[in-house]
Amino acid sequence: MNNLLKGKKGIIFGALNEKSIAWKIAEQAVAQGAQIVLTNTPMAARMGGTQDLAKELNTLFIPADATSVEDLENLVEKSMEFFGGKFDFILHSIGMSPNVRKGRTYDDLDYNFLQKTLDVSAISFHKVMQVARKKDAINDWGSIVALSYVAAQRTLYGYNDMADAKALLESIARSFGYILGREKKIRVNTVSQSPTATTAGSGVMGLDHLMDFAERMSPLGNADALDCANYVITLFSDLTRKVTMQNLFHDGGFASMGMSRRAMKLYSKGLDELVQAEESNIDFKDVSQK
Amino acid sequence: MNNLLKGKKGIIFGALNEKSIAWKIAEQAVAQGAQIVLTNTPMAARMGGTQDLAKELNTLFIPADATSVEDLENLVEKSMEFFGGKFDFILHSIGMSPNVRKGRTYDDLDYNFLQKTLDVSAISFHKVMQVARKKDAINDWGSIVALSYVAAQRTLYGYNDMADAKALLESIARSFGYILGREKKIRVNTVSQSPTATTAGSGVMGLDHLMDFAERMSPLGNADALDCANYVITLFSDLTRKVTMQNLFHDGGFASMGMSRRAMKLYSKGLDELVQAEESNIDFKDVSQK
Amino acid sequence: MNNLLKGKKGIIFGALNEKSIAWKIAEQAVAQGAQIVLTNTPMAARMGGTQDLAKELNTLFIPADATSVEDLENLVEKSMEFFGGKFDFILHSIGMSPNVRKGRTYDDLDYNFLQKTLDVSAISFHKVMQVARKKDAINDWGSIVALSYVAAQRTLYGYNDMADAKALLESIARSFGYILGREKKIRVNTVSQSPTATTAGSGVMGLDHLMDFAERMSPLGNADALDCANYVITLFSDLTRKVTMQNLFHDGGFASMGMSRRAMKLYSKGLDELVQAEESNIDFKDVSQK
Amino acid sequence: MNNLLKGKKGIIFGALNEKSIAWKIAEQAVAQGAQIVLTNTPMAARMGGTQDLAKELNTLFIPADATSVEDLENLVEKSMEFFGGKFDFILHSIGMSPNVRKGRTYDDLDYNFLQKTLDVSAISFHKVMQVARKKDAINDWGSIVALSYVAAQRTLYGYNDMADAKALLESIARSFGYILGREKKIRVNTVSQSPTATTAGSGVMGLDHLMDFAERMSPLGNADALDCANYVITLFSDLTRKVTMQNLFHDGGFASMGMSRRAMKLYSKGLDELVQAEESNIDFKDVSQK
Repeated sequence: MNNLLKGKKGIIFGALNEKSIAWKIAEQAVAQGAQIVLTNTPMAARMGGTQDLAKELNTLFIPADATSVEDLENLVEKSMEFFGGKFDFILHSIGMSPNVRKGRTYDDLDYNFLQKTLDVSAISFHKVMQVARKKDAINDWGSIVALSYVAAQRTLYGYNDMADAKALLESIARSFGYILGREKKIRVNTVSQSPTATTAGSGVMGLDHLMDFAERMSPLGNADALDCANYVITLFSDLTRKVTMQNLFHDGGFASMGMSRRAMKLYSKGLDELVQAEESNIDFKDVSQK
Repeated sequence: MNNLLKGKKGIIFGALNEKSIAWKIAEQAVAQGAQIVLTNTPMAARMGGTQDLAKELNTLFIPADATSVEDLENLVEKSMEFFGGKFDFILHSIGMSPNVRKGRTYDDLDYNFLQKTLDVSAISFHKVMQVARKKDAINDWGSIVALSYVAAQRTLYGYNDMADAKALLESIARSFGYILGREKKIRVNTVSQSPTATTAGSGVMGLDHLMDFAERMSPLGNADALDCANYVITLFSDLTRKVTMQNLFHDGGFASMGMSRRAMKLYSKGLDELVQAEESNIDFKDVSQK
Repeated sequence: MNNLLKGKKGIIFGALNEKSIAWKIAEQAVAQGAQIVLTNTPMAARMGGTQDLAKELNTLFIPADATSVEDLENLVEKSMEFFGGKFDFILHSIGMSPNVRKGRTYDDLDYNFLQKTLDVSAISFHKVMQVARKKDAINDWGSIVALSYVAAQRTLYGYNDMADAKALLESIARSFGYILGREKKIRVNTVSQSPTATTAGSGVMGLDHLMDFAERMSPLGNADALDCANYVITLFSDLTRKVTMQNLFHDGGFASMGMSRRAMKLYSKGLDELVQAEESNIDFKDVSQK
Repeated sequence: MNNLLKGKKGIIFGALNEKSIAWKIAEQAVAQGAQIVLTNTPMAARMGGTQDLAKELNTLFIPADATSVEDLENLVEKSMEFFGGKFDFILHSIGMSPNVRKGRTYDDLDYNFLQKTLDVSAISFHKVMQVARKKDAINDWGSIVALSYVAAQRTLYGYNDMADAKALLESIARSFGYILGREKKIRVNTVSQSPTATTAGSGVMGLDHLMDFAERMSPLGNADALDCANYVITLFSDLTRKVTMQNLFHDGGFASMGMSRRAMKLYSKGLDELVQAEESNIDFKDVSQK
């Protein structure tokens, strides 16, 4: 390991279990010399995964509902006590849509659910930064990262109101990045990650086929949770101090692809089969019409 | 006039007074042969401006709070009665931030206000489309437009949470544009308009200086409300039937500029003055230190 | 027709035959009241198509190699004589890659060919504007459009060095758009069109499968040549006077899509078949290894 | 130092003197454990700077004209001999416009000069990659970076045909990134750097005022050459293996800003002065008309 985060301290949201991207980031951050505090919802606390990781990494777990300003105030205060002062980085890896969970499609959204989607998946990021700023909790040249997805730019069927939540999240990163930058040189970025087989991701309709498509479209293949952890480490390190207000695609090249040969080959296979099937149908129809 | 909208019918949100972009769009739509229904908030109804326009254009005004699904259902039903069936276009020109109004800066947002900002300025757009779709109110090849601003992509100090609302609005246009497109060939776009001296715009801090900067940065100068109306007419017409899920910059070139000579000249003037002032200060300081 | 171009005059490059987008634009421009001059390469002149169109539209054909400043000077002069003065619009629909034609893949480019690709497909656009400007040939508030493709932003296998040419073309539109805008209020835009079954397009490897993919990805389906003509008419009209330095996607929504249900269905079909085939192979292998 | 590039080998183009970004990158790469070869034009070789750096870093300098395939073949062969096999990274930091040097403005380009601008500043990047690929010179999971500038997206007066060259450069990164990615997992990215006070940059008209504007617009201030070197190190390291085909803004936030308070303050100062001056003029005019 390279001690890239030696002497740095940070809070990590969203490490639910071993599949979580945040879990890998927590492990890598510690391996790179950082001190961390883990946090997750009170419900996640009952499930125990995050605590297990806290134990493994020999650190503190503080439950907090990221939509609750009070919980966040408590989290920041307790973390500052634990760290003995200000800290350096924050990871926001939180997303949830009751509309997706309850099977409400995008043309039949429940608006209370939508508000919840936005509050949990995007506005919580603002709350974290506003609370941290009011408590003057982050050191100059600190780094804040939230995880996003290309759905913020391009529509993927089935991703539903999470697409809008990610667009809002990325906008909040820019808006608050300006303020934290000019005041304290703190940078704020989002990482737009490949579709990843996490517990959260598994709720998305047809994720396995989409992951296959992304895998074949991306020249480097999909980025997995550990790849993402490594990348986020660079963003927390001092080597990226002038990168801010960016949405950084970490996806093996997917976002810059229009069509790859590998994906087209498979698509064409489906197309050929369809054409054959349609030709067969035409034959049958002709027969039946006689 | 070119009869570009002959036989077309549509609903126009947000024509408050003569300065409103929606007001100009309503006038131009009628001049181009369209039938329209005007709508605005019940409060705007009491102020009377929208009714005056309805009278001038010899059409119907139906008050509706665009955040209320019930009001929107009533609006769509009444409009369909008035039109004698389905209609063809919708203009969404609605935006309001209680945080801006009450002077809450972006690092001190009131989260109930933020929810209101998003609901009024962005989610209302989803509600309008969801209600219209459920009532099957829009003809095939219809066109839906919402007005946006470059703050959705780039941070402008003082624009506050309206930036996030516009990012959300543009995402909703993409997300719903996919559904309405595949089902009914209805297109959904946002127009990212120059800063415009409307009643709504005047709430933004330092708008006059910003408008001067935008004017000097943009090779064609700022687009005004009438320019915008003309552009939106093309988007409602049958000539743009394959444009969808786009955010279309209508800003005299501003969004594609890094720096113009005209703007730099003025900036340099300020810079020279600053340098002189600083040099003077140094002199004074030297003197005073003697 | 709406007389949208009544009294306007313009030059149209690239109308080779009835499939050409430029051909449709020429027809629609005339139908909308414009006077036009057609131009194409001397080689195209020998093939005769463009002259046929000139006859049909009762107008002038002037051969010009768009990479030759001399030819362009002659074209502009002759056009101004024909029009009796300045004109209002230009359409640039020119693209050709010797590397594609000769089967040189992108990792084995011939650099003389590449230079030719860029000269024909992109730099010619600069030459046209520089010549027109030096001759003060374009009226204030004129409009210049070039046709582009999404390959300028995203890599499509097989599109080869034409992708780079389109990126260069779009940059030239911005760069010259600033100058022509501030001086004469002339706007310059590119239209990023769906893959279209033109003679030029047919050189691209696997175009039919790509067109099927684009068709199923785009909620409105692919835009065809006539759709494109209609859209370009709006850009030449006075209704879009404040739109400049933009790349405008005219593609049924393709550029804003990450994955559609229709495209995914076909892709999944191919995927299922592959999985079955692989499983069969495994069986066979197992058998053969016994 | 963190030994981030331990065991890695690479070629660095464009280290002219101590101000050069490539110079800083070379120093940091070596400090991070890499072995490097330096290269520059034969003319730069005569000036001696690059050799001095090679001596300081105890490494090899191989002159090569990056527009010459032969020179590049020699460079790659000699480098592989020096390294004892394949290498891992390449930095392309090359840009030059004869049009800028000779004072030919963008509306009066010399087309031979333009061809030279594109060849030196963009096509050379393709040549480097094509030669390296043909010689199978780069290890799997290697990393290639070229330096770019925001002028590729937004027009800055005075940046001239270098804007188009940068757009072409970024497109080449995407196009070749796809090929090198799918074959060898090699990634290709561009870094869009703040305006930097290098020897190359000093040719741009009004650079000092532009740098001041960028400094005040960017919440973190401009990124300097050392900042850039640090960032590029992360891109060469194994921590960013799934980032490819991206243009990465490294500019203190500039590219995501619409207007900052600091920049607006200065602009307003210039504006106030102008308004005063204009009012004075009006007074004088009134007087003189009496």
